[in-house]
Amino acid sequence: MKIDFNSHISYQFLKSAFCSEGIFKSTKQVIDWLQEQNEKVHVNIQNIAFSELKNWVVQDGRIKHVSGKFFSIDGINVKTNWGNVAEWDQPIINQPEVGFLGFITKEFDGVLHFLLQAKIEPGNVNYVQLSPTLQATRSNYTQVHQGNKPKYLEYFQQATPTQILLDQLQSEQGARFLRKRNRNIIIKIEEEIEVFDNFVWLTLAQIKHLMLYDNLINMDTRTVISTIPFGNCSHEMLVSLSNAQVINHDVTNTIKTQFFISSITTENNLHSTEDIISFITNIKSTYDLFVERKDLRSLNQWVFDKSEIHREDNKFFKVIAVNVEIGNREVVHWTQPMIQPSQEGLCAFVCKKINGVLHFAVQAKLECGNLDIIELAPTVQCLTGDYRGNKATAVPFLDYVLNAQSSNILVDNLQSEEGGRFFKEQNRNMIIIADDEFSNQLPANYIWMTLNQLYTFLKFNNYLNIQARSLISAISFI
Amino acid sequence: MKIDFNSHISYQFLKSAFCSEGIFKSTKQVIDWLQEQNEKVHVNIQNIAFSELKNWVVQDGRIKHVSGKFFSIDGINVKTNWGNVAEWDQPIINQPEVGFLGFITKEFDGVLHFLLQAKIEPGNVNYVQLSPTLQATRSNYTQVHQGNKPKYLEYFQQATPTQILLDQLQSEQGARFLRKRNRNIIIKIEEEIEVFDNFVWLTLAQIKHLMLYDNLINMDTRTVISTIPFGNCSHEMLVSLSNAQVINHDVTNTIKTQFFISSITTENNLHSTEDIISFITNIKSTYDLFVERKDLRSLNQWVFDKSEIHREDNKFFKVIAVNVEIGNREVVHWTQPMIQPSQEGLCAFVCKKINGVLHFAVQAKLECGNLDIIELAPTVQCLTGDYRGNKATAVPFLDYVLNAQSSNILVDNLQSEEGGRFFKEQNRNMIIIADDEFSNQLPANYIWMTLNQLYTFLKFNNYLNIQARSLISAISFI
Repeated sequence: MKIDFNSHISYQFLKSAFCSEGIFKSTKQVIDWLQEQNEKVHVNIQNIAFSELKNWVVQDGRIKHVSGKFFSIDGINVKTNWGNVAEWDQPIINQPEVGFLGFITKEFDGVLHFLLQAKIEPGNVNYVQLSPTLQATRSNYTQVHQGNKPKYLEYFQQATPTQILLDQLQSEQGARFLRKRNRNIIIKIEEEIEVFDNFVWLTLAQIKHLMLYDNLINMDTRTVISTIPFGNCSHEMLVSLSNAQVINHDVTNTIKTQFFISSITTENNLHSTEDIISFITNIKSTYDLFVERKDLRSLNQWVFDKSEIHREDNKFFKVIAVNVEIGNREVVHWTQPMIQPSQEGLCAFVCKKINGVLHFAVQAKLECGNLDIIELAPTVQCLTGDYRGNKATAVPFLDYVLNAQSSNILVDNLQSEEGGRFFKEQNRNMIIIADDEFSNQLPANYIWMTLNQLYTFLKFNNYLNIQARSLISAISFI
Repeated sequence: MKIDFNSHISYQFLKSAFCSEGIFKSTKQVIDWLQEQNEKVHVNIQNIAFSELKNWVVQDGRIKHVSGKFFSIDGINVKTNWGNVAEWDQPIINQPEVGFLGFITKEFDGVLHFLLQAKIEPGNVNYVQLSPTLQATRSNYTQVHQGNKPKYLEYFQQATPTQILLDQLQSEQGARFLRKRNRNIIIKIEEEIEVFDNFVWLTLAQIKHLMLYDNLINMDTRTVISTIPFGNCSHEMLVSLSNAQVINHDVTNTIKTQFFISSITTENNLHSTEDIISFITNIKSTYDLFVERKDLRSLNQWVFDKSEIHREDNKFFKVIAVNVEIGNREVVHWTQPMIQPSQEGLCAFVCKKINGVLHFAVQAKLECGNLDIIELAPTVQCLTGDYRGNKATAVPFLDYVLNAQSSNILVDNLQSEEGGRFFKEQNRNMIIIADDEFSNQLPANYIWMTLNQLYTFLKFNNYLNIQARSLISAISFI
């Protein structure tokens, strides 16, 4: 008796993750196509004074859109007993609406393909990056800005429970967004669908392959892709994929296979799920995070001048105002505030084989915009400090990561933050495989987790931060 | 080969849940003992004016302790697109510190016993109820009030990961507390331990049996007990317990056995865990909850007079000030603000056998103090309205619950809210088994879940509200 596993979501995701080329554009063709798009796109971004912003006003101590929609730049005062700084002020993006980050998927030749859009965002390092099928704030799709209705929106609004493969709320950058979340959703359709210009069908393996390059896959794609788990495949499914030579058992000893095993096994964990919950409970019970709104014009250590809000020491980031002209976006000309970082950051996971299974050194990290005090973060996350400075040793594992031998580096590239809010912000993403001499003992607030355990926490609200998810999305099994 | 399952936490919990009498006091003796304690306790509570409160002040628009610790009564303005009321003001308890609600357990004759305290709280309907071993706010155990250090605190502060059986953050009443949570923790010790006056060792089955009576088991005990899952017992453990006649297979058809099966089975769910997450994601993406502090003295529709803060129409609840004299509590005389409800409420789960497994009709409910917009609540939860009024039909399933035949009622009793904050607040707790004619179709924002699925969500942060947990804690398998 032949069992049809194609009705199993996990089986389909896994098959797509092992399918190195789809039936439409090859990965090479996608790279060329993006390059081509990038060359022909017209983008002109100019810094302007806040007073030159159209439809944006400084009012009630914040920078807000006259409609009251989209987002605002607020000031906050932060108090915490975490870390060395007990209190600080900063600007933060306040965007309480939950937006859609959604993929339409469809089976072609028995393999799930994802519909991606070559999308221009003003802040992107490459202006054109691959985004999910739908990337829309509630203001977008309720058409506050009178632009066109986002393409494919109706598929998500009308999706039935059986069409929805995944549907989770996931957080944005906690240092920059005040408790912002997006709805990360993947739906599967059976019917014919029109593929508009700038859209392309890719397998999951192709998307992950493109993540090996700098700044081709945007943050929104990465967060949605990170939510796809592989742990609920039955043994029979794995055997079936193996028999069909989708999974090649000859590669059992490669590091990629070790990641695969870490993603599906529920055994040989160093810590049980209950232990990890206890670890988190203890931290959330010990540390406080108090955030109160404060007038942008009276933030301690910050200067609000005509065209910038920046720190007196110019550290971390500044708020700027820009005039944007873009060729092929829904609204081709507009002004908006943006966040510009002072320098690029570094996000790295250190992984190590423990009890025969790859474990990730995960850090509990407090960021002021977190909904719930801490989220699980990469081993190293220096987003806003200059990690090249001489204080490197103050950040645990930073030296280790920066001095890793190339044979131990699985991932090392630059990836952009969301280009609609951040101006040319990119961070170095790294995954390092530690040698045996790397200690199993971690500092307080760090814990070892398998990939399967990370996926377990990922599917519940607000456990893994966006930097951790971005790194997880890049893990490919082939 | 005989496997020793006693090292498995789940096995131990299950065995204790099936052990109708412990080796110390019988359940009957506990009831008599509580009665006796109640009769001899000296409690004198008098309403006073706010100005007569000692060490409490009205300052910055709130009622606060002069130390800045314990809790404050704040005013809030609430805006939401959920339900019929788009905006309202109300007082709320603000207590940002996470407190301990903890049980010490120990094996006696191979069965796990829980150490409970007969504890007096000023607001309790019976002054003396059974509380966890430790019930302490951070202010308590950092000894702000100069009282005695809480008994057994050091066991929890020094607990090693292997001693910790359960350790979760769980929410308090979302209509009364602003994002308040407690650390629900159960530890197991091996060593001899001194049992102080007013403490008693009971099995899990005894605790659940005592919950059949009105107001004997306090809210803090109920929330910690609710976190004990049974779903991770292996088939071998169940066979072992069955062979040892701990689980009696002759009762397969009783309703209690159906609850047991619903708690352990992961099959025949009407909805997958992923479907339930999608259900929650959709609601959290659709509904907004904006809460801002507002001066207690300027709350719309509320009157702040000398000795009460009450609504103009006297609905819902009022804030009062009381003078407390208690015989055998750490601090024997003090004053404090309290919350007094206008009338008792009703919390009820309707359960129905679907696909051969009991499912619970669960409601997603927005309450203004929720950390994350909605939590999963009982089928019916009318805490603050007069459910006996003629608007009963406006609340889904309320008529059904109030008119249930006694043969369909598994649980029906009165249980108290936390007696340290609430003055004589009790709610009717009910679990109803629906007949086949009860429709499988539920209104929007309701979903069917098995007990095993409820336990899955319960262990992650802030999914089940305290009323749902209180009901779950009362489910006994014998």
